[in-house]
Amino acid sequence: MISVAEAEALVMQHCVLQPAELCPLTEATGRVLREDLIADRDFPPFNRITMDGIALRYAAWDEGLRRFELTAVEAAGMPQTKLDDEHAAIEVMTGAVLPEGCDTVICVEDVSIETEGSRKFAVARESGAKKKFQFVHLQGSDRKAGDVLARQGAMMSAAEIAVAASVGKSPVLVSRVPRVAVVTTGDELAEVNAVPQPHEIRRTNGYAIHSLLSACRIPATLFHVRDNEDELRLKFSELLAAFDVLIISGGVSMGKKDYVPEMLTQVGVKKIFHGVKQRPGKPMWFGQSTEGKTVFALPGNPVSVMLCAVRYAVPWLLKSTGFETSAPLLARLVSDVCFASPLTYFPPVNISFGSDAVISATPYESNTSGDFAGLLACDGFLEIPESQPVFSAGAVFPLWLFRPLFSS
Amino acid sequence: MISVAEAEALVMQHCVLQPAELCPLTEATGRVLREDLIADRDFPPFNRITMDGIALRYAAWDEGLRRFELTAVEAAGMPQTKLDDEHAAIEVMTGAVLPEGCDTVICVEDVSIETEGSRKFAVARESGAKKKFQFVHLQGSDRKAGDVLARQGAMMSAAEIAVAASVGKSPVLVSRVPRVAVVTTGDELAEVNAVPQPHEIRRTNGYAIHSLLSACRIPATLFHVRDNEDELRLKFSELLAAFDVLIISGGVSMGKKDYVPEMLTQVGVKKIFHGVKQRPGKPMWFGQSTEGKTVFALPGNPVSVMLCAVRYAVPWLLKSTGFETSAPLLARLVSDVCFASPLTYFPPVNISFGSDAVISATPYESNTSGDFAGLLACDGFLEIPESQPVFSAGAVFPLWLFRPLFSS
Repeated sequence: MISVAEAEALVMQHCVLQPAELCPLTEATGRVLREDLIADRDFPPFNRITMDGIALRYAAWDEGLRRFELTAVEAAGMPQTKLDDEHAAIEVMTGAVLPEGCDTVICVEDVSIETEGSRKFAVARESGAKKKFQFVHLQGSDRKAGDVLARQGAMMSAAEIAVAASVGKSPVLVSRVPRVAVVTTGDELAEVNAVPQPHEIRRTNGYAIHSLLSACRIPATLFHVRDNEDELRLKFSELLAAFDVLIISGGVSMGKKDYVPEMLTQVGVKKIFHGVKQRPGKPMWFGQSTEGKTVFALPGNPVSVMLCAVRYAVPWLLKSTGFETSAPLLARLVSDVCFASPLTYFPPVNISFGSDAVISATPYESNTSGDFAGLLACDGFLEIPESQPVFSAGAVFPLWLFRPLFSS
Repeated sequence: MISVAEAEALVMQHCVLQPAELCPLTEATGRVLREDLIADRDFPPFNRITMDGIALRYAAWDEGLRRFELTAVEAAGMPQTKLDDEHAAIEVMTGAVLPEGCDTVICVEDVSIETEGSRKFAVARESGAKKKFQFVHLQGSDRKAGDVLARQGAMMSAAEIAVAASVGKSPVLVSRVPRVAVVTTGDELAEVNAVPQPHEIRRTNGYAIHSLLSACRIPATLFHVRDNEDELRLKFSELLAAFDVLIISGGVSMGKKDYVPEMLTQVGVKKIFHGVKQRPGKPMWFGQSTEGKTVFALPGNPVSVMLCAVRYAVPWLLKSTGFETSAPLLARLVSDVCFASPLTYFPPVNISFGSDAVISATPYESNTSGDFAGLLACDGFLEIPESQPVFSAGAVFPLWLFRPLFSS
């Protein structure tokens, strides 16, 4: 059996980059950029006024002038005007272009207006102009035309979407999302809407994996196959033709009815590993076909499924879209953990944020690893190495979340 | 002008709870539960076998018996069998019901099989059975029928989805998502696909807000209106009839063309506040109609839009679905921040996670608050109170994210 680090390395080495596709901006949130976003103009593209007020020559102010005839009005969205009289001013609004001949804006609160017949004058307060280019966002001061703003590999948040819009990138080139089939196996599994027989339980693993992927914006299609060699072989063969990735639950242990690894092998999926020194999820199987179709075959225990999906399948899927996955989050153990087996231990944990900005993890106490209702009180799994039997409160370990963190 | 705390309180006091609706499980991730999830059966619903092997009476083992005739096979999904001969055993598989008359399972690795004609015997290793109910997940040991598993108000992660599936809740009752219109205003704004005139810039705020909401699984529809009183009045009136929430950008300052507050008032939206002692986002306007239609009118600066949407609109929207929003995340300042104005300061920050499990925030240095390309290097905003002019590295403040945190 291999270690968690070896399993992770093998999974990531067998990542298959998805092709790129064009995507409307309104559907691109959470997608991964496959082109650099380049400034097509300066940011801002002109000397942009940031306050309503009057635009004038600072030299005139400097000479002591405080009363300016208003010779024009320039609102946002109007072509640039020009100051013809260097002792006059132009009424301007936020978002407008700084008029030609002007270099300073005095805001509307620092100005009073006087009229003389059809003529209009602005009288400015002494504190009105503090410096040249006051209330002007200078052309190119944030970015220059040609600058690379965002690089491919970035996951698009509202910031990338806004910048893509600003440079006219709609549609934008992003990675195609892998096509994923989620397959549950097990004759004891009843439909969700059925009343189960006394010896049956309802299917939960397919929905759990579907939900995890959905939280990463990866749609998946659910299937169920009975514990029958012919049915498994046929369904796997069909699904490998139609999907990029299969995530299977159940049928991977050493039991009589654990047909999944053998049937995968028969339809051309080569085993990369079977068994990882971890709890939960020890019987996990991972393989790939020569065409790059990738199979995560997870044990049927719902807690194992959640851990294996979060620890291996989700990182593979994100990397397959070109996303540069960062180092995992880290969390601090709140209480001692004893775990004597020579396995990496992934206890489910509840996460909290203290006034010290530390991410704290409280292990969930459960009598069995099959207690998936216990996950309701948890946010993720801590990854505790196999190095020693006792880990003390205060130690810091990687954290794998199945529940997104919100800040609101 | 009111403080950030007062603005937040007013926004949250005017929250409108959305009605509940039924939702298929495969679409329920990220939605908010509006019914408790109750165990319809024990968890597990029967004494469930957790290893392939043989099931037997512990008393027989205790008497010294190590060789057991195998009188039946019980796979997962088969009705419960019965041990007729108390010195025999039944071959069992993971997920099967513990046979009547059995109380212990010895796993397949600890057993060798012998055949005598058509009869089959299992010979167990001395270490095979360590205790009664070994490898049996006892009925009701996790939860009892009737137990409340998850409560309304929970946001559905993979854990809630799995539990909902296990109790047959498909569809499941969740909050309807508010219908949101996002309206940009400003005559200087060109379409994303247009080549802007020299005095124009492309629309970005609508896409940014749309993306923020999309990250919270709240769809929104985009609109743009020119800086014209009649057009604004007409469009606001139409949108208030068709949507629950309007998020508007631009036109809320004190300038000549800032018609938005007045036009909202004219179509029956009552002002709740206008102006918040904060940077960015000071001119923000918030109001509500007597029918509960709610309007966030944000200043047009793209950084202000992002902050106001994350700080006020998103929490309102989440609360409107019945989600019990938790305290905000906290992050530790990496460098000193000087900010002398009597305003709450929200600098954009980049977040990092150190080996000490601390969330660190590095303020983004920018020459203007209009530098929205700078948000690409950031993850959220820190909320620094107006209490003093200098805040030292190491201090901890609330964190408002616009970029989701991943653990993989």
